[in-house]
Parts: sequence; C-alpha cells; structure tokens
Amino acid sequence: MRHLRKDDLSNMSKFWSDIVKGLDPYVPGEQANDASIIKLNTNENPYAPSPKVIESIRDSLGDQLRLYPDPQALVLRETIAEREGVRASNVFIGNGSDEVLAHAFRALFKVGETVFFPDITYSFYPTYCKLFDLNYERVALTTDFEIDLELYPSRSGGIIFPNPNAPTGIQKDRPALERFLQSRPDTIVVIDEAYVEFGAQTSSSLTTVFPNLLVTRSFSKSYSLAGLRIGYAIGHEDLIEGLYRVKDSFNSYPVDRLALVGAEAAIRDQSYLAQIVEKIVSTRSWVSNELAKLNFNVLPSSANFLFVRHSSVEAENIVKKLRQQNILVRHFPNPDRIRGFLRISIGTADDMKILVDRLRTILAE
Amino acid sequence: MRHLRKDDLSNMSKFWSDIVKGLDPYVPGEQANDASIIKLNTNENPYAPSPKVIESIRDSLGDQLRLYPDPQALVLRETIAEREGVRASNVFIGNGSDEVLAHAFRALFKVGETVFFPDITYSFYPTYCKLFDLNYERVALTTDFEIDLELYPSRSGGIIFPNPNAPTGIQKDRPALERFLQSRPDTIVVIDEAYVEFGAQTSSSLTTVFPNLLVTRSFSKSYSLAGLRIGYAIGHEDLIEGLYRVKDSFNSYPVDRLALVGAEAAIRDQSYLAQIVEKIVSTRSWVSNELAKLNFNVLPSSANFLFVRHSSVEAENIVKKLRQQNILVRHFPNPDRIRGFLRISIGTADDMKILVDRLRTILAE
Repeated sequence: MRHLRKDDLSNMSKFWSDIVKGLDPYVPGEQANDASIIKLNTNENPYAPSPKVIESIRDSLGDQLRLYPDPQALVLRETIAEREGVRASNVFIGNGSDEVLAHAFRALFKVGETVFFPDITYSFYPTYCKLFDLNYERVALTTDFEIDLELYPSRSGGIIFPNPNAPTGIQKDRPALERFLQSRPDTIVVIDEAYVEFGAQTSSSLTTVFPNLLVTRSFSKSYSLAGLRIGYAIGHEDLIEGLYRVKDSFNSYPVDRLALVGAEAAIRDQSYLAQIVEKIVSTRSWVSNELAKLNFNVLPSSANFLFVRHSSVEAENIVKKLRQQNILVRHFPNPDRIRGFLRISIGTADDMKILVDRLRTILAE
Repeated sequence: MRHLRKDDLSNMSKFWSDIVKGLDPYVPGEQANDASIIKLNTNENPYAPSPKVIESIRDSLGDQLRLYPDPQALVLRETIAEREGVRASNVFIGNGSDEVLAHAFRALFKVGETVFFPDITYSFYPTYCKLFDLNYERVALTTDFEIDLELYPSRSGGIIFPNPNAPTGIQKDRPALERFLQSRPDTIVVIDEAYVEFGAQTSSSLTTVFPNLLVTRSFSKSYSLAGLRIGYAIGHEDLIEGLYRVKDSFNSYPVDRLALVGAEAAIRDQSYLAQIVEKIVSTRSWVSNELAKLNFNVLPSSANFLFVRHSSVEAENIVKKLRQQNILVRHFPNPDRIRGFLRISIGTADDMKILVDRLRTILAE
C-alpha cells in the first residue's frame, strides 16, 4: 500500500481537487493485530463491553440487516436524552465522535473567522480546519499544561477543547467552565468530552442554559465500544438541527443497525459502566504512584491515560524499548514542548504491572 | 422532533455557519417499522443477507469490540480487490456508498468549475454539490429517459451518473461507456454502480485503463446489507489515495468491526448473491409484464426497481391508495417530467403479487 508522505507532494494527482492538496490527514495510533501485544497506545478500554451490548446485538443479528437503519436514530437519541435529562431533539448521533466533531466544525464554526483551541490537544482539530478551510489559532497551555480559559477571545469563529484535555488528561472544573460560558455568549463553544466519564465533570446540563454550547461524547472509551463506531453530541436543538442538516447532506445512514442497538444497551447498563470505570480509575492511581517512583513526572489525569515525562531518559528511547518488549505506548513528536512525554493508556491491572516492571528494567539499563 | 422546512428559513440559528444556511439536505424514503407493511420504497433487497454474513458477524461479536477497527480496512479491500482483479490500493471502503460518494465529490470534483450529471438521477448529487460548494449543471435525459453521453463536455469539474441510472433503471452498455471515457481523458468520471449487479455491465475493469474513472458500489442492494452501512470504490491508486486523504481528514474509522467482517463474508459468498439476484430479476420480469397489462408504461429496468407511469391515473393518487393498503412505493414530485412516475422496488414474488392485485383494484375504482 503506497502512503503519501507530506514531504513528497510531487506524487499529487492532477485529478485531485485543490482541497486534497492542502490536507494534513490525521494519523491514528497503530492498530496491532497481535494478541501478545499490550496495547496502551490508542486509549482503548482494556475491559470487554457490557454483556448486554453483545446480547442486544446478537438478538438483532438477522434478516433485518437487509433494511436501512433509522436515519434519525430516534430510539438511541431518546435513550441518551432520558439519561442526560434533555430531549431527543437535543441529541445528535454520529459514526464515532470523530464524525460528530467533523460535522460540528462544518456546521458551527465560521469560515473567514478564527477558530481557537489549545496548542496541546487532540490533533484532529487542525486536520478538520484544513478540510473545511477554517482559520485557526492555537492557544498555549500554562506551564503546568492547563487550559487557560482567560486567553480565549469573547468573539471568534468558534472555540473547542476536550475536557479532560488530551493528551494531558487534565480537567477543567464545572464552575470555571460556567464562568467561561457566561462571558462568551456569542461564540460557539464545543467541549469534547470523549474521556469525561473517567473523572471530569460533564457540562451536558449546561447546554440547557447556554445555547452556544455543544458537548460531544464517545462510546469508544468508557463504554468499551471503539470497534462499533458511535458518538453523540448534546446541545440546544438549533445546534443539533444544524448538525443534522450537514449530516443529511453527507450521509443519511451513518450508524448501522447493530451499532444503534449496541449503543442503546450500553447506555442502559450504567452499573457495568461504573464498575469498569472504577477499575480503570483505581489502576490509574496505582500506576501514577509507581511511575512517580521511577522518576516520571505524571500529569494529574482525569482520563483513561497518563501523560508522563521521565526526568532523564528520552521518550523516543523508552517507546522503542517498550516496543521490543511488545508494549505499545504513544509518543507525539510535535509540538516540541511535549516531545519528552509518553501517553500511556490505562490497561488492566496486570497489563500495568508488566509495564511498570519493564520500565524499571529499561530505566536501570 | 422539529424539522426545518426549506420554505421556513426564518428558523435559522445565528450559530449556524453560512454553509448550513445554503444546504438542501437529502430526504431518504420513509423507514417504516411496521412489519405488516410491504416496503417497496427504498430499494432494499427483500431477501435476507447470506447466512455466512450473519455467521461471521456472530463469530466476531465479543470482547474485540473494545478495540478500534482497522482504519485501512485492509482485509476487506484485499477481498474485494481479488474479486475485481485489481489491487487493494485500487479499493476504497466507506460507510455506505453515500459516504464514498461524498468523499469522491470532495476529493475529485473541482470547486470553481462545473460538475455535470443527468437531470433525472440520484437526488443526493445536487445535495453534495451544495455541501461542497460545487457548481453543477443537469444534463437532460433523452425523451426515452436515456443518458445521452454526447451531451457531456470533454472538460469539466467532474461527471457523475449511475449505471443503471436511478430512478429510471435504464443502463448504458460498456462499449458506449468505453467510447465516452476515451474521448474524455481529462475529466473525472464517477460511475455510481449501486444497482449494477441486477443487470448492467460493470465498468470496474475499465479503471485499469482510465486513470480518471472511479466506480462506486454498494452492499445495500444486491448484498441485502442496507442495515450494515458499507460501500466501496474502485479506481486508479491516485484517485483512491485522494479519497483516503479526505477520509483521514474526516473520520479515521468509519466502518465498524462487524460491518467489515460481514462485508467480507458477503463478497466471498458469490453463489448466494447470484441466487437472490436471479430471483429479483425474474420477479422484475413478471411484474413488468403485469404492470404493462394494467396500462403502465414500464421503463426497461436493469435495477431492483421499476420506474412506471400509468396511462391515465395520477401517480400521487396511486401512492396514496397503496399506502392505505399498507404498501409503500416512492414518488418524486421533482422534476416535473417524472411527476407522473412511481418507483417501485422489487420485493418477493409474493409481495409483488399482492401489489399487482391491489393495483388492479385501485385502477378499477
């Protein structure tokens, strides 16, 4: 399979549109197929999805696959709405939160103005901006790697940040977000809550107060359903309608029948969610301590990953040696400020014990 | 659920981007949930998908759902490539052929030039043009509702048409398409083969000769997998790479794990495909004759639907009366030239006998 490198644009086809030439596609973490690998590089949940999800999908698995799914995903929207204390018209469903975000950038952010997001954050944001021809500006995190909300302008083409932020894992508390929204009534604010269930406070109920707030969510992390591709957004019905207008101009049926019933079962099984989230949070606490003992600076994480920097050994070196031991973690070469960091997903307690053991050996070499 | 009507743009939100304001979202056919309804309105296959599809999905249904699917869908691409006599680098996989088409419009059609398609065709094409800010021009079908290839310019922002065309069902033969492509080496041509398996000749092998040709395909119709959301495209690797650059700027993982394995099993079970396609073709032939006897003008269909006009009774009237009898068919109020037509999907032989009986009664009233 040929892969175009950014520094080799001589390969561009004359049949590409001008837009393609200017893209900077997102590069997801490696998806290894080898079961012997401990995969701590793409923030997947180490625990199986709820057995009720599997059961629901199994029950829907049959002749009905010949029929299109509900293009409005109404049953799932109602299920989520009930849980969030909003109405179905306040919920948008998409093919993973990445698709939800793409539609939000398109539907809500303003071409010709400037979109603002943190300098260290989910690296898909600038990619969307290039796809949709949006100007953007990166706003520096503090020296403690926190989002400084004061630095975001009160009027703009749009503001987006994750809570907790990725890859730092650091959260913003709700009172701070509320004050922030109160002072920015005229700008669209998207809070990307892909990791919110692991320890941050959700802003979903703020959407009933602030008609300019969209909150996005994922089933890929806390619900253990990265393989099923569903995400959603919560917001004022005008924002949701904007998203549906874009979605219905792009793909009528982005979420398949099996994903719809699986997601519904996942939402209904909150006790299972609480149980696996608790295990991850407890493991995160243990690993954080162990890594600190090994001279890692560990940022305070509210997510299912840690962002850590060793006091002396280079991150790239550690990544390489862990890979030789069949452990994958993620390293971001850019921006320079995070080149020294590793992002380590929280696996099972056993996975993390092996990780800590291997790190101890590597660092002693 | 509030639905915005096109004539009620006073409801537009100040938080929408300018692009949203100019959209004209596609309206899919009604998805009725009532099993007593004979659903002949969205061209679904009346037969179940291959049992091997169900089996493969059942076998993949478990803990692995916690992991992301392969963003490159390599196994499915290889399976399709083998069947089509091309390489995996010539195959693009998307979330239904609608998403494949959306990415093709974005990646290959030129903003600022004009895109051409038939005046009577898949009504999603102008919707994509509005989403991607593409100029377009509709090219009139002949008085026999055929595509007149001579009328398409040799240089343009892009050309797209389905083969067989929808909703007419009329196909173009391969020699005509080959001559057409020979005389238009500088324009992207997309042939949308959503219905090709029901009687038209595929142009997929022409992609190895014409680097400007993209052929798109669906699993929703012939493979009975509308509920699973998978489509694909075949073309020169430069075109496919353009599509992947757009896809990787939009959504890394648009096709879930279950859909990937289901589609693979479907491709591998060609004998099942042949069997259900044969039944539909045979039923189509029977219904065509019966409808002709009832004074319908029946266009010669190579698809899994018929496009028919009664000699005296108004189409809207027939639709209404069929609906009272729990039979759904599709009617397009625009353009004016097809207002007299009904599009009737081919159901089972039993479904179609009921349809013909009901029509006989309705027309005798």
